[in-house]
Amino acid sequence: MPNILVVNGPNLNLLGDREPNVYGAASLSEIVAAMETEAERLGLKMRAYQSNSEGGIIDIIHNERGWADAIIINPAGYTHTSVAIADAIRAVRLPTIEVHLSNIHAREEFRNRSVTASACIGQISGFLSYSYILALRAAKEIIEGRIS
Amino acid sequence: MPNILVVNGPNLNLLGDREPNVYGAASLSEIVAAMETEAERLGLKMRAYQSNSEGGIIDIIHNERGWADAIIINPAGYTHTSVAIADAIRAVRLPTIEVHLSNIHAREEFRNRSVTASACIGQISGFLSYSYILALRAAKEIIEGRIS
Amino acid sequence: MPNILVVNGPNLNLLGDREPNVYGAASLSEIVAAMETEAERLGLKMRAYQSNSEGGIIDIIHNERGWADAIIINPAGYTHTSVAIADAIRAVRLPTIEVHLSNIHAREEFRNRSVTASACIGQISGFLSYSYILALRAAKEIIEGRIS
Amino acid sequence: MPNILVVNGPNLNLLGDREPNVYGAASLSEIVAAMETEAERLGLKMRAYQSNSEGGIIDIIHNERGWADAIIINPAGYTHTSVAIADAIRAVRLPTIEVHLSNIHAREEFRNRSVTASACIGQISGFLSYSYILALRAAKEIIEGRIS
Amino acid sequence: MPNILVVNGPNLNLLGDREPNVYGAASLSEIVAAMETEAERLGLKMRAYQSNSEGGIIDIIHNERGWADAIIINPAGYTHTSVAIADAIRAVRLPTIEVHLSNIHAREEFRNRSVTASACIGQISGFLSYSYILALRAAKEIIEGRIS
Amino acid sequence: MPNILVVNGPNLNLLGDREPNVYGAASLSEIVAAMETEAERLGLKMRAYQSNSEGGIIDIIHNERGWADAIIINPAGYTHTSVAIADAIRAVRLPTIEVHLSNIHAREEFRNRSVTASACIGQISGFLSYSYILALRAAKEIIEGRIS
Amino acid sequence: MPNILVVNGPNLNLLGDREPNVYGAASLSEIVAAMETEAERLGLKMRAYQSNSEGGIIDIIHNERGWADAIIINPAGYTHTSVAIADAIRAVRLPTIEVHLSNIHAREEFRNRSVTASACIGQISGFLSYSYILALRAAKEIIEGRIS
Amino acid sequence: MPNILVVNGPNLNLLGDREPNVYGAASLSEIVAAMETEAERLGLKMRAYQSNSEGGIIDIIHNERGWADAIIINPAGYTHTSVAIADAIRAVRLPTIEVHLSNIHAREEFRNRSVTASACIGQISGFLSYSYILALRAAKEIIEGRIS
Amino acid sequence: MPNILVVNGPNLNLLGDREPNVYGAASLSEIVAAMETEAERLGLKMRAYQSNSEGGIIDIIHNERGWADAIIINPAGYTHTSVAIADAIRAVRLPTIEVHLSNIHAREEFRNRSVTASACIGQISGFLSYSYILALRAAKEIIEGRIS
Amino acid sequence: MPNILVVNGPNLNLLGDREPNVYGAASLSEIVAAMETEAERLGLKMRAYQSNSEGGIIDIIHNERGWADAIIINPAGYTHTSVAIADAIRAVRLPTIEVHLSNIHAREEFRNRSVTASACIGQISGFLSYSYILALRAAKEIIEGRIS
Amino acid sequence: MPNILVVNGPNLNLLGDREPNVYGAASLSEIVAAMETEAERLGLKMRAYQSNSEGGIIDIIHNERGWADAIIINPAGYTHTSVAIADAIRAVRLPTIEVHLSNIHAREEFRNRSVTASACIGQISGFLSYSYILALRAAKEIIEGRIS
Amino acid sequence: MPNILVVNGPNLNLLGDREPNVYGAASLSEIVAAMETEAERLGLKMRAYQSNSEGGIIDIIHNERGWADAIIINPAGYTHTSVAIADAIRAVRLPTIEVHLSNIHAREEFRNRSVTASACIGQISGFLSYSYILALRAAKEIIEGRIS
Repeated sequence: MPNILVVNGPNLNLLGDREPNVYGAASLSEIVAAMETEAERLGLKMRAYQSNSEGGIIDIIHNERGWADAIIINPAGYTHTSVAIADAIRAVRLPTIEVHLSNIHAREEFRNRSVTASACIGQISGFLSYSYILALRAAKEIIEGRIS
Repeated sequence: MPNILVVNGPNLNLLGDREPNVYGAASLSEIVAAMETEAERLGLKMRAYQSNSEGGIIDIIHNERGWADAIIINPAGYTHTSVAIADAIRAVRLPTIEVHLSNIHAREEFRNRSVTASACIGQISGFLSYSYILALRAAKEIIEGRIS
Repeated sequence: MPNILVVNGPNLNLLGDREPNVYGAASLSEIVAAMETEAERLGLKMRAYQSNSEGGIIDIIHNERGWADAIIINPAGYTHTSVAIADAIRAVRLPTIEVHLSNIHAREEFRNRSVTASACIGQISGFLSYSYILALRAAKEIIEGRIS
Repeated sequence: MPNILVVNGPNLNLLGDREPNVYGAASLSEIVAAMETEAERLGLKMRAYQSNSEGGIIDIIHNERGWADAIIINPAGYTHTSVAIADAIRAVRLPTIEVHLSNIHAREEFRNRSVTASACIGQISGFLSYSYILALRAAKEIIEGRIS
Repeated sequence: MPNILVVNGPNLNLLGDREPNVYGAASLSEIVAAMETEAERLGLKMRAYQSNSEGGIIDIIHNERGWADAIIINPAGYTHTSVAIADAIRAVRLPTIEVHLSNIHAREEFRNRSVTASACIGQISGFLSYSYILALRAAKEIIEGRIS
Repeated sequence: MPNILVVNGPNLNLLGDREPNVYGAASLSEIVAAMETEAERLGLKMRAYQSNSEGGIIDIIHNERGWADAIIINPAGYTHTSVAIADAIRAVRLPTIEVHLSNIHAREEFRNRSVTASACIGQISGFLSYSYILALRAAKEIIEGRIS
Repeated sequence: MPNILVVNGPNLNLLGDREPNVYGAASLSEIVAAMETEAERLGLKMRAYQSNSEGGIIDIIHNERGWADAIIINPAGYTHTSVAIADAIRAVRLPTIEVHLSNIHAREEFRNRSVTASACIGQISGFLSYSYILALRAAKEIIEGRIS
Repeated sequence: MPNILVVNGPNLNLLGDREPNVYGAASLSEIVAAMETEAERLGLKMRAYQSNSEGGIIDIIHNERGWADAIIINPAGYTHTSVAIADAIRAVRLPTIEVHLSNIHAREEFRNRSVTASACIGQISGFLSYSYILALRAAKEIIEGRIS
Repeated sequence: MPNILVVNGPNLNLLGDREPNVYGAASLSEIVAAMETEAERLGLKMRAYQSNSEGGIIDIIHNERGWADAIIINPAGYTHTSVAIADAIRAVRLPTIEVHLSNIHAREEFRNRSVTASACIGQISGFLSYSYILALRAAKEIIEGRIS
Repeated sequence: MPNILVVNGPNLNLLGDREPNVYGAASLSEIVAAMETEAERLGLKMRAYQSNSEGGIIDIIHNERGWADAIIINPAGYTHTSVAIADAIRAVRLPTIEVHLSNIHAREEFRNRSVTASACIGQISGFLSYSYILALRAAKEIIEGRIS
Repeated sequence: MPNILVVNGPNLNLLGDREPNVYGAASLSEIVAAMETEAERLGLKMRAYQSNSEGGIIDIIHNERGWADAIIINPAGYTHTSVAIADAIRAVRLPTIEVHLSNIHAREEFRNRSVTASACIGQISGFLSYSYILALRAAKEIIEGRIS
Repeated sequence: MPNILVVNGPNLNLLGDREPNVYGAASLSEIVAAMETEAERLGLKMRAYQSNSEGGIIDIIHNERGWADAIIINPAGYTHTSVAIADAIRAVRLPTIEVHLSNIHAREEFRNRSVTASACIGQISGFLSYSYILALRAAKEIIEGRIS
């Protein structure tokens, strides 16, 4: 059974409470629960982490690189500047999908570009918590070799 | 049964033959066929068009605005410059999903920004033909009011 | 009786329905009708076209260049990028007036600059459908040699 | 009878003599006289001022804000940099029309953008002294509520 | 006998009449006739098209990709912005030569860069109609494998 | 018999040995020999120089300005920055053709712009050593007054 | 008793009436009165001026430079461009505090940078009229040598 | 009694020892002690933290969001780049005051802009340790509803 | 006897006292006196004005345009932004020399460019009060037609 | 015996495994071992740390500032953005040498500039693990006062 | 008797013949002769050189640094880019005056900035050959200590 | 015995005398002597050249390319602009080390980027003359294949 590492970045622990008109009404634990249901349905194992720290995110990626077959990451506020997280993704050589709750292309200009997505297979942005569900399905396709 | 308008932009008629290492091996008709299978499974009706012309894409969006409940669009080379297509999406007030076969965030700098995505609900980029399948599922969620 | 070519660009066929808080409540046919009334009052003949296509707009300018004495053009979404339309205006050597329904100077930064206006006599921007009426009067002044 | 405040910025007192190939042959007093004729025809009262000083222009706007129903302003050389004049226009909450004798979109790049127009209803640029006549007509439409 | 596709972009149908001090006195049909004479001399077959539409140019490239052995293209006003035409050239994998009548490096700054030339073998710019004749000779060298 | 000055800039003395996948396999002396053959065929006299020095290139242009009727120049690495060489070309008032072996429009961004080409009649770029042959033919056309 | 010069820039005379959601409900005379109360409490003498003119502001600074021990200045719309006011502050060598009613860091990008603050001791921005009260306290600390 | 969270960013633990000519001679514990004295005087409770970590700062803001009524933050080196800290401030919806010891507007250009201040009520910059004292007073005004 | 208008901009009235290490030890009246001595020696009449106001400077230029044969101007802080002063110089069509006490090319980047110098014959920068003496001599040469 | 603090930034713990074509085949522990051998040879004591966290790196620098006589740091992905690490280096006033395994000047443009190097004595970049050995030797020279 | 080194840069040997409408009608030898006359009058010795080479100019500055008391330099086309010449001027620590025949502030944008002037005492630009005469007088003032 | 070519760029012949606080007190001949001692110790032969000319530096690289096994180069003022020297390094395909006496990352912004280093193995910057000694050691490692 393929293993999916889910990494959530800064401030995502406050989801549900935090600007729900931008990020949706679901809390992070609700999103993770919905992902686990879907992962089970898709025959995937999943480990989910959240960290507010750039270094913490890198540590998670490093620590789970032996276990994981793919990564789903929402780098949140680090998306637009973190060379170090992008380097971590490149370093572990695991297929990675970047997700965003809001549509980063329709917000402030500094949110339009993603430094981290350049190290990923692809990006899904704007479908609130459903971005994560789509990413799980994409991860399954990638792991099973149907995207190439 | 909700109606999905699928709009493909310039050079996508050559898919399969065109730089398959970048855009994948599937032809456009194969992608459309796979979408139709998935659409049927999801209980969606679908009409697919391709045009190499910026104006042609706008015409399609206008013409089908009475029929469609949502739009899936790959503006291809017009993604990065077309104010007119973005204005068309805004004008018809239909939920729209932008898709890309390749990961536009990992290519030349001029491909990193999307002018058209700012008028959309969200963007899915990098999963080759599977980007379209994910978009269909997202469209269903949006139409049925589960993303908000 | 002097001849005025009126050219409307992409998405203007949806006027009235399209973001009326930005572009006003009048439909394109209502605007054209109001222009025709005014043109008659001013002793001008008028032909009005709309195209969503950059090439279509150029074709109209070329086709009517033998008939027209002046051009009133709203290039809409092509205003900010179209070297080709600006070149077309220069090529036909007809006095041309650019009009905009909304005030392009008070909107997103990418709408602040006009590539096409550099090939025109002048620009009128922000008076909704009345921009076109003002343009007709300006056209008459230009044709009759009172602006120089 | 509605009241129109006309404000002319730096160097416009030299019109007629100043680069007539760019700004036309009419002197400022000739332009004001033509405007007064037209204003009377349109049933408008008009007060016209000229100042070479950025602060002087702001003072005029402030002083006449109780009297005026609309403003026609040519900020001339202050157009491209004056946050203070734009703030003054916003402060008095009067519908304002920016006019230019020359087509600012067809001149040096630094003249292509207007800081002050972002605080106005619209802009008329390039019709020499006739820009002012058009502005009077637009002002009447605005005051009488026909532009909205 | 090798086949050469000649594609002319917007406003080139007005050559001869259009700013002859910039683009020369030859009409497009005169240029095509001169090219045909030279092509015959070089043992090349030639098909020449002109379109004012970005999409039309892409259609021509697609339609003739089975017939043509090389492309000579003057994208005119689309040179500086068209990702879609550049993508079309890449898609058909035919050796392509970009030509310009005027020297784009000696004109307005926005004309100094070519988006489309990055997809071509080379560019010839500034020799008026003779740019096309030189391109024919270069095409022959390329097709016959003498440039590598 | 018209005289053609051929000026080659820095590192071109190493052609053949230097990155042949970029610049082709021909040595500079082979290129010059091929040019001389073609020049003779065209009825042109030719003097060819190479210098690694910006000042040296200017000296050559100055020294031969009395003899030459036209210049063919490959400024190589000085293309993108040398105001001084561009000024030299303007100073001698001789028709000048800029050539490049590689397609400068398809390489690093800093190679996309040519400072020196703005002082030339035209530019030929990307046809390896054949760029020079094409330039000779263009020079003959220019000198004999057939390009204007 | 130390002397504080208070200088208010363009449009601040309209405070209370001017965009109160941005600048607060207090009029300038109310702000000055509150400052005078606080100044008295702190043992400071105060002179307050307002001018809509860049030169007028410089004149005030010059005229009062013999009397004042410190300056509190709100350059308003001149904040972002006025080299001349910044030079005036440097010229008089008095400790100067820049204040803003609104938070300039949270508004349009052109308001994010202050040219004038580079000549000051510090800046207080965003506390509406209370910015001035804080500035008085800071001025007292500076004059009495407790900030260094 | 209202609660004030004080957050100090990277390198501020070295205050007193660190470049005292820029940041002043007071140590962080001296600043905190002075703040506590003032807070008591103002009837405010205060908790002060320092972290060198961007994620640590976010954790502090999150952890104390139930307790705090307002935040005083000096993001130090993270001021100019941290989208994540700005997002944290927005997420907790507490009135926040940004303080700086030095005048960031008078230092290197990269220090002139604050990413984090855009999420705050206001900013106080340049009064060394007294910036914090002023911030306490501003916090009291905000909490007690006198700034609006 | 030719007439020279000398115009000094903002803060120059404080010369001698103002940052003497940058601007020199001479007061403005000492500079004017030295200029008058030199003017007399050169057979020139001279009128000198100083204004801290951009509009004031324009007024001076306008008022003296009938009397003056040439202008020597130090726009000081307005040098780098004032389109209006540059337009005034163009409007009066008098040969104008820009002077600076300090070398603007060796100071902050924003002082490196002069907006106003583009409307002048030339610029003299960096020789402290002697810049003005040199300008007088240049003015004499220009008026007597020896520079052309 | 002088003390050298060695600080390694994000992802360097994966050396050997991580993109060895870019960063070399040596693991971090192999590099540290080689450094220890060299340090002993040079008469230097050494403590080596690695952290993926920006704040962690700052903590290390702070904690060891009493022990260390010099710092050798590879800030890895934080090199290009971290004002906070640069400030930490300045705060501890220890001579610091920045090292990079790869040549940052020959990679993506965003890697060409180092924010942190501006706070260091010097930088050594591109010699894979040997960059560290060179840095040790340079550290010895600096500590013993032979570089000044 | 003080010694003045005069250095003329690329293409200045062609003066008189080279674009005389821009650079004036005087040849370089005429300019040098006029300078020698003036130098003698001022009690200065003078050596004049011209070189088309950036390195040649540096060599001249180095070679004459023992003899010269001041330098007058026209770096011509190297003005806008040459760090090396600016470094040479700094290296020899001689007071240096930059001169230009044309007004570099009124020409193409790339000519508006001078890299070399930042290493000089001042700059004189726009007075054709008279710029050199003014520079001689300024040099005398500087050497005799009257500018400080 | 491996051969090392040492190339020193403009103004380095004045070392010792030239801004010793920036570049150190050692003369170039002292540096070369120290290098020769070290080279002998390392078993390397060395040839050292200095040229103030960009072309001269290229000539040296070309001339010695048959003899040299590696290059140590300090391009000095040409570092930041010379495409031609970078091309020369690429052309000769010799491992090259760029050295700088001062830390180019801690000086003016235009010195922060190196055009030439992109063609080198690595760069050593900031250790005064010891940068050269480190480069010799790095060269030995490279030649003996221990860096890869």
